[in-house]
Amino acid sequence: MKSSAKFYHAGCPVCIEAQTVVESYLDTTKTDLEIVHLGEAAERLPEAEAAGVVSVPALFVDGRVLHLNHGADLTALK
Amino acid sequence: MKSSAKFYHAGCPVCIEAQTVVESYLDTTKTDLEIVHLGEAAERLPEAEAAGVVSVPALFVDGRVLHLNHGADLTALK
Repeated sequence: MKSSAKFYHAGCPVCIEAQTVVESYLDTTKTDLEIVHLGEAAERLPEAEAAGVVSVPALFVDGRVLHLNHGADLTALK
Repeated sequence: MKSSAKFYHAGCPVCIEAQTVVESYLDTTKTDLEIVHLGEAAERLPEAEAAGVVSVPALFVDGRVLHLNHGADLTALK
């Protein structure tokens, strides 16, 4: 089954750079990719936190969270 | 031209988890992937530093560095 990846970000410059890499090099034959802007979709903060995301940008895939550099802590988005 | 990605690590648990994700989901039709263990290949520390790597695990691709979570600072490997 194809897995589902989520890229959480907040529109920050660090986020945009990481998004460029993820969109360019994530193998979308193996996983779908959803881009979630937590600054605009604050209702999804609990979902991100439950996944283990503590800062953005972050990529969640296969139950694992990769924090990609550091743009902003999730607490700064509340 | 196919680009060349490098995954720098030091064998730490955080590194291994990140490596699992990178090896599973990096689109290798677009980039080659070289795994570099900086604990075993200390002679490559200058190359990693020049690329902008400050901690491992880190993925270098297209001139960009993504630090994937935090295992160890490069200074700890010297």
